[in-house]
Amino acid sequence: MRIEVVENVLKANDAVAAANRRLLERYGLLAVNLMSSPGSGKTTLLERTIPMLGPAEPCSVMVGDLQTTRDAERVGPYTVQATQINTGTGCHLSATQVAEALGRMELERLAYLFIENVGNMVCPAEFDLGEHARAVLLSVPEGDDKVAKYPTLFQKADVILLTKVDLLGVLDFHIDRVREDLARVNTRAPLLRVSSRTGEGLGDWLDWLRRTRAAAAGAGA
Amino acid sequence: MRIEVVENVLKANDAVAAANRRLLERYGLLAVNLMSSPGSGKTTLLERTIPMLGPAEPCSVMVGDLQTTRDAERVGPYTVQATQINTGTGCHLSATQVAEALGRMELERLAYLFIENVGNMVCPAEFDLGEHARAVLLSVPEGDDKVAKYPTLFQKADVILLTKVDLLGVLDFHIDRVREDLARVNTRAPLLRVSSRTGEGLGDWLDWLRRTRAAAAGAGA
Repeated sequence: MRIEVVENVLKANDAVAAANRRLLERYGLLAVNLMSSPGSGKTTLLERTIPMLGPAEPCSVMVGDLQTTRDAERVGPYTVQATQINTGTGCHLSATQVAEALGRMELERLAYLFIENVGNMVCPAEFDLGEHARAVLLSVPEGDDKVAKYPTLFQKADVILLTKVDLLGVLDFHIDRVREDLARVNTRAPLLRVSSRTGEGLGDWLDWLRRTRAAAAGAGA
Repeated sequence: MRIEVVENVLKANDAVAAANRRLLERYGLLAVNLMSSPGSGKTTLLERTIPMLGPAEPCSVMVGDLQTTRDAERVGPYTVQATQINTGTGCHLSATQVAEALGRMELERLAYLFIENVGNMVCPAEFDLGEHARAVLLSVPEGDDKVAKYPTLFQKADVILLTKVDLLGVLDFHIDRVREDLARVNTRAPLLRVSSRTGEGLGDWLDWLRRTRAAAAGAGA
């Protein structure tokens, strides 16, 4: 009974996500859904990424949080538009919330649309938003066992960012364990090592964004 | 329609939680539900806490994770019993899962039962498990904005542990911001600073556990 309702919710979400995807494909932009635990560095990564892309590759950001507009305020200065979606008690963004926010966005001006999901390693994995690509962040302080313990999120990733790698010297973290666990759940997505603090690896992330945007534009044409 | 179903699920959960609570009150133990993001140090805290309590205050642990039995294996050596509950894609423990695990536990031998919830700052907040007390962990690397962004979890806490405080010197984290946000959502729960690595604050945490157990036993008598 409950399962059926949940399935209907997921089906309804997928239909709206498909409509979002069709809308986004009309423009030459890349929409990336960023997912991770709270505090693994999604907003900080965007604060660094967007100025590096610069005015030639304009960005907007949609941010999901239970409450507050702090993240939208943080990325606001760097973006064409920053939209905060407050989910109340909702543990993930839905395609409908994204559809409503898309209706208020000047998509024709954008090279990238970053959708920063609610900080949560479980629920966002099940909800397609209509994005072109999924970026999953794992921060060094969270520990090297998270891929094995939360495989559903990592399974669906198109790119995985190991963030806060500047803390590798301070904390007991074995990247090999992450690689071994990823070998079981996702062999497709590259694993990028980044530090928003030192700038390490941000070039690789920008390369990935540009390559993926070019591929999406090719597929949509 | 969906809301009604969700309400029914919550009502059914609360009824089972009440039965769990009645069962637990027959014994002189304290059941603590530990909740936090993935990787904020729940398991490591238990690895330190249980040996410090020692054989005079025996503990068992119930651990919720999507997959793997790693956490139960980690705390196993220190406990009377360690039970892993794999939730599959479930984003929180439910009272029914706890009830089933309680049926296999030797409750009469225990001073403490630690229930380590699925790493998630959103969903576990809504599901009473029948515990006596709720401990919410926030780790320094997650950032000082999490109370404001995820208030529902902190609202219901009986104690809040700021973990990994040995990283305060390395990271930009302002405890005053946490205190200010807590003043708005929860003025009841003490905020304890702990580091499982250096041992800082673990004495305060043990004091809190012993005091709370004594109070629970007094209330149950």
